[in-house]
Amino acid sequence: MQDYTSTWIKGAVILAANMARAGYRPVAVGVGEREFYVDVESDKSIELEEATKFAQYTDIQLKVSDGEIEVNGLRLKSSHIPSDNKPRYFQILNISTHHPSPDRQYVRVHGVAFETEEELNRYMEWLRRAAERDHRLIGESMDLFSFHEEVGQGLALFHPKGQLIRRELMRYMQEINESMNYQEVFTSHVYRSILWKISGHYDMYRDKMLIFTHEDEELGVKPMNCPGHIMIYKSRQRSYKDLPIRFSEFGTIYRWEKKGELYGLLRVREITQDDGHVFLREDQIQEEVTLLIRKTLEVLEKLGFKGEDVRVNLSTRPDESIGTDEQWEKATNSLVNAMRSMGVEFRVKEKEGAFYGPKIDFEIKDSLERWWQLSTIQVDFNLPDRFKLDYVERDGSKKRPVMVHRAIFGSIDRFMAILLEHFSGKLPTWLSPVQVRVIPISDAVSYYANSIAEKLKKRKVRTEVDGTDETLSRRIKRAYDEGVPYIVVVGRREAEEVTVTVRGRGNVEVRGVSLDKFLAAIEEEVSNRELNPTTLERIR
Amino acid sequence: MQDYTSTWIKGAVILAANMARAGYRPVAVGVGEREFYVDVESDKSIELEEATKFAQYTDIQLKVSDGEIEVNGLRLKSSHIPSDNKPRYFQILNISTHHPSPDRQYVRVHGVAFETEEELNRYMEWLRRAAERDHRLIGESMDLFSFHEEVGQGLALFHPKGQLIRRELMRYMQEINESMNYQEVFTSHVYRSILWKISGHYDMYRDKMLIFTHEDEELGVKPMNCPGHIMIYKSRQRSYKDLPIRFSEFGTIYRWEKKGELYGLLRVREITQDDGHVFLREDQIQEEVTLLIRKTLEVLEKLGFKGEDVRVNLSTRPDESIGTDEQWEKATNSLVNAMRSMGVEFRVKEKEGAFYGPKIDFEIKDSLERWWQLSTIQVDFNLPDRFKLDYVERDGSKKRPVMVHRAIFGSIDRFMAILLEHFSGKLPTWLSPVQVRVIPISDAVSYYANSIAEKLKKRKVRTEVDGTDETLSRRIKRAYDEGVPYIVVVGRREAEEVTVTVRGRGNVEVRGVSLDKFLAAIEEEVSNRELNPTTLERIR
Repeated sequence: MQDYTSTWIKGAVILAANMARAGYRPVAVGVGEREFYVDVESDKSIELEEATKFAQYTDIQLKVSDGEIEVNGLRLKSSHIPSDNKPRYFQILNISTHHPSPDRQYVRVHGVAFETEEELNRYMEWLRRAAERDHRLIGESMDLFSFHEEVGQGLALFHPKGQLIRRELMRYMQEINESMNYQEVFTSHVYRSILWKISGHYDMYRDKMLIFTHEDEELGVKPMNCPGHIMIYKSRQRSYKDLPIRFSEFGTIYRWEKKGELYGLLRVREITQDDGHVFLREDQIQEEVTLLIRKTLEVLEKLGFKGEDVRVNLSTRPDESIGTDEQWEKATNSLVNAMRSMGVEFRVKEKEGAFYGPKIDFEIKDSLERWWQLSTIQVDFNLPDRFKLDYVERDGSKKRPVMVHRAIFGSIDRFMAILLEHFSGKLPTWLSPVQVRVIPISDAVSYYANSIAEKLKKRKVRTEVDGTDETLSRRIKRAYDEGVPYIVVVGRREAEEVTVTVRGRGNVEVRGVSLDKFLAAIEEEVSNRELNPTTLERIR
Repeated sequence: MQDYTSTWIKGAVILAANMARAGYRPVAVGVGEREFYVDVESDKSIELEEATKFAQYTDIQLKVSDGEIEVNGLRLKSSHIPSDNKPRYFQILNISTHHPSPDRQYVRVHGVAFETEEELNRYMEWLRRAAERDHRLIGESMDLFSFHEEVGQGLALFHPKGQLIRRELMRYMQEINESMNYQEVFTSHVYRSILWKISGHYDMYRDKMLIFTHEDEELGVKPMNCPGHIMIYKSRQRSYKDLPIRFSEFGTIYRWEKKGELYGLLRVREITQDDGHVFLREDQIQEEVTLLIRKTLEVLEKLGFKGEDVRVNLSTRPDESIGTDEQWEKATNSLVNAMRSMGVEFRVKEKEGAFYGPKIDFEIKDSLERWWQLSTIQVDFNLPDRFKLDYVERDGSKKRPVMVHRAIFGSIDRFMAILLEHFSGKLPTWLSPVQVRVIPISDAVSYYANSIAEKLKKRKVRTEVDGTDETLSRRIKRAYDEGVPYIVVVGRREAEEVTVTVRGRGNVEVRGVSLDKFLAAIEEEVSNRELNPTTLERIR
């Protein structure tokens, strides 16, 4: 796309000058990834409609000096130079706030400006298309999560609807884990440095770790959950009869990736993993891995990834590694045999295993034909050794267990972002934060709309009512844009007949359905966690 | 109780000398809260039975110097001086491991030693009684949680059964929260320092915060969840119609209390709160607080705390405070009116409110007649001001909302510890990590025991089988000691009749019950979250 930076800065300066004239205090202009912005110092928020009033072309005299633009005596910080263009076509996009210092607040007005209406229209159309696929924009329009200057880059806050999606994913994974006899644990986020020295993270991983000293004690925030699970293993004497011992945790870990590498929820510094660790005997690896592969493929298929769209890789022993030849051979054979016995095709990544053991990973192809690595199953000889783990053998001798690290989603939040882009925000019903939106055609039937919503909510169907006075078609479009799978439109006829009209995605509509029938159908769809909406078929 | 330190140290030295003679490498002796310990450098764990072999009196020659005891050429670190006593009666209590440096492991053998058998018996009896009430010992015997040197003081790791209790408490609170229209959110554990400067925690609370610098950015681990929730509030323009907005989170926060103040799960550095924040208009305080009081009393009563065993306090404006007279009066009146309208008696703690607003707190009295403060409802004029929150009023003007902070359990982990002590580990069935233990009388009926267990597990009743070859009475006693509410004993007769014999707490037994009847009864008890076991009554 064309670079509009200098035109946008010109637009930003015009907007700032207009706002200053009305008594606002603009202090800086700049350019974001897709728009210009004006920072206005203000104790109060500013609404979109209010800001839009000032978004119109005015002739301005400006003086550019180093890092500053002066206009009508107003000084604005800027690291960009405005063009001589006359941007007459503005669009204010959205408004946010941040605190440049503890007691001040800047309101940031985001917008674009172009010389021609055609350019504006073309740009807005491009933005609309981008917004259908970019999880950051989908997240904004669905109100799922946000990032804030004051919180820090790469650290997301999950809003109620984002947390609903996370919870659904976690609940599903809890069921999968329970079906494999995992036991959920909960471990601290902070540990003394000695733990990271034992595990080796302190030496190998330190630049990505948050390490600090408090009262002469050095501590670190966890970049991985394994050492915590290992300490739980070590809290009791374990016997060969106890193995495999399987711990799972939705553990939130922190890895300080470089700022330039951060990207929405796809590359963050705060990661919630569907983590799990298995402590087992060498002769149990194959059976365990077989189980894990089967469940991983089941989970991926549940979300529509199967056949050609799933790729399995085996990474073998690298040149530098620990463990004996015999261990590596046994473990690698176990992985190969597990895959062969299931008829799973895989590619071999020669010498790409970790130094501590071989691994299997799973990649999926999304609807934009991008491959994402999600699930991993990793054998580990190293940590059991570093932590001197053992179990009592049948003959009373002490033996070292092997560990398997595994994650199926990988990171829950990254997986959510991938799903949002893959489905363009139109998630399967069970994952949709709003499953039904009820739209009363007129105020006269809002009582009926509310009673329907109450009944749905009582049965745990996530339901909202949109009783605003906008046109029916606008409200329907908004529900669709926000990814709501079912829209229940009620008018006088429905209220009289005590029925509902249900619209699904793709403009399909079924009229005159009894609420109970609809309720049963959507409950069935959700409890089966169906990939594609089936409720309309069921009630037709 | 008598101070046995010097006798115990003598016993520890004897044990160490005996172990050294057998080839072990003891390095230090010391005294814990209730026992002596010997640290043995070892790459392998040591079992209790093994250590017990060395626990017998031997004549030793020892030389005590500064911080060290020498015995038979063996040097043991020690900060205590052994007595001249001859401790002949030993008991090894348990064994743990820790890492004094990243590549070494110490196995710590814990025990006691006395000169007379009577002393030993008296002590073991005292310990048995203490173990019935001390949540740390209950947690150990029920395998709920552990603390580790390598993790850090005050930082608990929750084992599968501890996490089951936490999850049950959280699930219950999720239902309570949903019934009040709270929306769950999820926020980062780490934030830039500017956030803590805006909130005021950086100045007021800094010595308890974990603050660190990474790549020139100063960050802090959250000691409270409020600022994260506030940022979510600020991510959108809010309208008077949206209020109250209620966010909840099971947020894990870190407060670096002094080491000397730490105590099991009752005083920790890592706290998971059932936190919640309400953003509302001043005229909504009374209704909101009424709802909160009602729900708080409901939750406390569900766990058996009601009437005389619950105390409510109102803390009023302190001398130093922010906010106008009018705000304080309105808010305090709202709290008072809420309590009066419900007929809740309360005590006034004059001037004990926070500087930012008045509060209500709830105390409960446990079975040992100790009062614990749990729930709080706190009005806050301060943070909305510091974060410059607003909402759009009906007339279009901007107004500042009030905040209410609330927690019902307070800290989930502390509440769990209080419940463990209050119930002596005999939790209500819905909170019990193991709800049923199936004991086959002989191997011949273990198939039947397993089939019963499978049926119970399939219906989500948490069930274990104890098929060890110990005597029936020992296995029953162990199940009882571990707080299991129902013991299902199956013998040949039950297998033939396809029935079960169910034992409850207090040695009550019902014979010849059909499994379906038992299943229905326990499901009912659990789903009602009944305080006292009712299943036996139902199946009698």
